[in-house]
Amino acid sequence: MNEFVQLSPEVAAARADGRPIVALESTIIAHGMPWPQNLETAREVEDVIRAEGAVPATIAVIGGRIRVGLTNEELQQLAQSPDAMKLSRRDLPFALATGRLGATTVAATMICAHLADIAVFVTGGIGGVHRGGAESFDISADLQELARTPVAVVCAGAKSILDLGLTLEYLETHGVPVLSVGQDNFAAFFTPDSGLKADFRMDDADTQARFIRAKWALGLSGGVVVSNPVPAAQAMPREEIDAITAQALAEADHQGIQGKAITPFLLARIKALTGGRSLATNIALVKNNARVGAQLARALQKQA
Amino acid sequence: MNEFVQLSPEVAAARADGRPIVALESTIIAHGMPWPQNLETAREVEDVIRAEGAVPATIAVIGGRIRVGLTNEELQQLAQSPDAMKLSRRDLPFALATGRLGATTVAATMICAHLADIAVFVTGGIGGVHRGGAESFDISADLQELARTPVAVVCAGAKSILDLGLTLEYLETHGVPVLSVGQDNFAAFFTPDSGLKADFRMDDADTQARFIRAKWALGLSGGVVVSNPVPAAQAMPREEIDAITAQALAEADHQGIQGKAITPFLLARIKALTGGRSLATNIALVKNNARVGAQLARALQKQA
Amino acid sequence: MNEFVQLSPEVAAARADGRPIVALESTIIAHGMPWPQNLETAREVEDVIRAEGAVPATIAVIGGRIRVGLTNEELQQLAQSPDAMKLSRRDLPFALATGRLGATTVAATMICAHLADIAVFVTGGIGGVHRGGAESFDISADLQELARTPVAVVCAGAKSILDLGLTLEYLETHGVPVLSVGQDNFAAFFTPDSGLKADFRMDDADTQARFIRAKWALGLSGGVVVSNPVPAAQAMPREEIDAITAQALAEADHQGIQGKAITPFLLARIKALTGGRSLATNIALVKNNARVGAQLARALQKQA
Ligand SMILES: [Mn+2]
Ligand SMILES: [Mn+2]
Ligand SMILES: [Mn+2]
Repeated sequence: MNEFVQLSPEVAAARADGRPIVALESTIIAHGMPWPQNLETAREVEDVIRAEGAVPATIAVIGGRIRVGLTNEELQQLAQSPDAMKLSRRDLPFALATGRLGATTVAATMICAHLADIAVFVTGGIGGVHRGGAESFDISADLQELARTPVAVVCAGAKSILDLGLTLEYLETHGVPVLSVGQDNFAAFFTPDSGLKADFRMDDADTQARFIRAKWALGLSGGVVVSNPVPAAQAMPREEIDAITAQALAEADHQGIQGKAITPFLLARIKALTGGRSLATNIALVKNNARVGAQLARALQKQA
Repeated sequence: MNEFVQLSPEVAAARADGRPIVALESTIIAHGMPWPQNLETAREVEDVIRAEGAVPATIAVIGGRIRVGLTNEELQQLAQSPDAMKLSRRDLPFALATGRLGATTVAATMICAHLADIAVFVTGGIGGVHRGGAESFDISADLQELARTPVAVVCAGAKSILDLGLTLEYLETHGVPVLSVGQDNFAAFFTPDSGLKADFRMDDADTQARFIRAKWALGLSGGVVVSNPVPAAQAMPREEIDAITAQALAEADHQGIQGKAITPFLLARIKALTGGRSLATNIALVKNNARVGAQLARALQKQA
Repeated sequence: MNEFVQLSPEVAAARADGRPIVALESTIIAHGMPWPQNLETAREVEDVIRAEGAVPATIAVIGGRIRVGLTNEELQQLAQSPDAMKLSRRDLPFALATGRLGATTVAATMICAHLADIAVFVTGGIGGVHRGGAESFDISADLQELARTPVAVVCAGAKSILDLGLTLEYLETHGVPVLSVGQDNFAAFFTPDSGLKADFRMDDADTQARFIRAKWALGLSGGVVVSNPVPAAQAMPREEIDAITAQALAEADHQGIQGKAITPFLLARIKALTGGRSLATNIALVKNNARVGAQLARALQKQA
C-alpha cells in the first residue's frame, strides 16, 4: 500500500476479511451540501452501504495522509470545514505535502480509491464538459481520470449545467464505457433522463460486475461510469430543471458574468431557484447510488 | 498471453516458428463491404499477406474470446453477420462478457493485436476528427488508441468525410508519428493525396521498421500511422471525391440532418454517388496495404 | 539506462557521486537564438547551474544517440546548425534511426531527461494552445508530455503569442500542477504577469521539492510546471508586448496569412518589432530559470 494511504480500523478489518468496500468522496460533505444536512447525509449514505452488506470508506486528506474510512468525529470536522481544500489530481500532492485539510473530488477520490485497491466509488454526479467548453476548454479533470484510473464510478449522471452531449463524446473518444441502470439513457442528476443514450443498459449488479471484470482482465486502463438515475419519486421534472438552468444562463449573460465565474454563479442560482427541493433530490440520488454501488462491490467480490 | 486471447492454429504455428504475423480488422468484413465482396476481399487480403511471406491474423470476438486468426467458416460467418457488434475500446468487454459476436474497429483491433504481441495491423483507413469536430467533439477513439497502444497501423490515410487537417493536428499533439509511403503527403483513402504533409516519407520497409523499432526501444508509448496511398490506377480523382463529399454535405444540410446522424448519412450518400467504383477502390487499397504491412512485418522480424 | 542514452563524463560523474543534475534543451541553441548569442547563452546557462551547485546536462541527438551533457565543441556544433532537426516526441525515433543531428524541444527533452533519470529540466517557455486553437487544434505536444512524463519543467511561463488561458485550462483538465515562484500569477515569458492565476505559489525550492516528491510518491504520472517570472529589471512591459503581439496578429490578418504559417510569422514579427530587446529579455529569463532549476534539483536531492 502507498506510504500516504491510511485505512481506518473498519476498512482495514473489511480488507483482512475479504469483505466488499465502497469508496465515497468528501467534497460533497465539505462543499456540496449545507450544514447539518451534509453530516447527516454522509452518515446515512455510509449506513445504506452497510445495510447492503458492504463497508463504506469515505476518503479525505487529513494531517498529510490519505485517510480511507473516517470516524464520526472526522466526518463532522469535514462537514464544518467549508474552507477545506477542494482536491483534484493536481492538488492532491499539495494537501499531502503541507498537511492541509482536503476534501476529494471525483478525480482525486478515484486516485485514492485505486491506491487503496478499492474498485467501486459512489458519488452524486461526475464532472464533464462545461457548456461552451469547445471554446473555453473548461473540461473537468474527472474525465481524464476516468480515461486513466481503473475505478467504477456510480453516479446519477452529470449536472444539466454541463454539456452532456459533449461530455459523452469526450468519454467515447477516450474509450470510457458508460453503463446505465434501469433505463437506456444517461442520467442527468436532478432528473432521470438526459435524452442521450448511454453505451449499455445493465440493470443488475452481476452483469455490471462481469463487464467491469472483463475490462480490467483485458488490461484496459481507465474507469467505468455507472449511470444510475435518481428515483422518479424524488426527481425534479426535466422541464423545470431545464427552465431553471436556462433562466440562470440568461441571468449570467445579462449580468455580464464570464469565464471561470459562470459555473459557481449557475450552481448558486439553480440552488436558489429550486429552493430546498434540489437538496432533497441530491440527498435521495446519493443514497440511491450508495445502494447500487454496494451491490456492485458485492458482485465484484463474489466473482473474484 | 491474456486469458481472453486465442490464437488460431496457423497463427500459433507462425508464432512458434518466429514467422512474421499481420493483424487484420473485421469491421470491414461485417459492416464495411457488401456480401459477397466482403468475404472474397477478406480471403484475398489474407492471401496477399501469405504471398508476401507473412501470416494473416484476422481478429474478431467470437464466443467470449478474442480470436486471432479465423477459419474460412468463421470469416464467412462474420461476412454474413451485419448485426455483429461494432467493437471499439469501450465495447470490447461487453462482447467478451456476454459472448456476443463482435467485429473489431481500428481501436479494438490495435488492443487485441497488442495483447497477442502482434506489431503490425493492416486496415483500410483510420478514424479521425469529424468535420465540425471542434464543436461536436466527434473524434474517433482510434486517435486515442494510436496515442496509447504500440502497434503500427498500415492504412490509406483517412476518409475525406473527416477533417484531415484536424486529424493530423490531433495526432501531432499526442506525439503519434505519421509515416508516408511513396509520397510526401498524407493519403486520403479513395484518392492518394490529401494535400497535407505527413511527418516523414519512408518508402521501404527496412526504413519504416528501423523507425518503429527505435520508437519502441525508447519506451515511447503509442502507435505509428503508416499512410500508404491507393495506387493511381485504382484511385478516384480527388476533384470527383471532393465534389461528391461536398454534395453529400449539402444534402445533409438541406435535409436538416444533424449530430450523430451526419456521418452514416454521408457515408451512405458517397457510396451511392460513386456507384460501384468506390467499392473497387476500397478493395484495391486494402490489398495494397496488406502488401506493405506484410513487408513491414518481415522487416521488423528480421531486425529483431 | 536505455540503450540510446549516453551520459557525458561530467554527468556520469555527477550521477556516480549523487550530485544534483539539471537537464537543458537544445532547440533554443539551434533554432531559438542567433549566433553567437546562442552559444554564449548556452555556456552561461550551464555556468549558472554549476555556480548553484548542480551539474548541467544539455540534451541533443547526435550520431544516433541521446547525448546527455555536451562538450563545448558539441554546443558549438549545435549553435552553428540551424538546419538541425527540431525534435518533438514523434520525431525523436527518426533522428535516432537515421543518425541525423537533432535539437530537442520541451517535449523531447522531457522524454530524454526521464530516460536519463533526471527530474528537473530548465527551458525558456513551454508550448501551449495557440490562439484559435479551439478551432485549429494547434496545441503543442509539450502539454501532452507534461500530462505523461514525470519531469519538473522550470520556465518563464509561455509566450503571449499563445492563448495562455486555454493553455492553463488544458493543463488543469490533464491534472498538471502549475507552481508559481515569487508571485501568484502564471508568467508570460517576456513579461512577468499573464494576469492568470497559477495553481500554487511556492517561492522556495524546499517547498517545491516537497510538493513534487509527494506527487511522484503517489504514483501520479506526469510533470510539473514551475513558472518563474522574468526579473522585472529585464522584463518587457506587458502593454508593449501585448501591443506588439496585437500588431503582428493584425499584419497576419491583413496579409492573409493562415493556418500553420501564422506562428512562425508572428514570432518573426515580434522579434523584429522588439528589436534586440526581446533577445536580451530571453537570455535573462533563461539564466533566471537555470538558477531556480538548480536550487530545485538540490532540494530534491537533499530530500531523497
Ligand atoms: Mn475547468
Ligand atoms: Mn464519435
Ligand atoms: Mn501544432
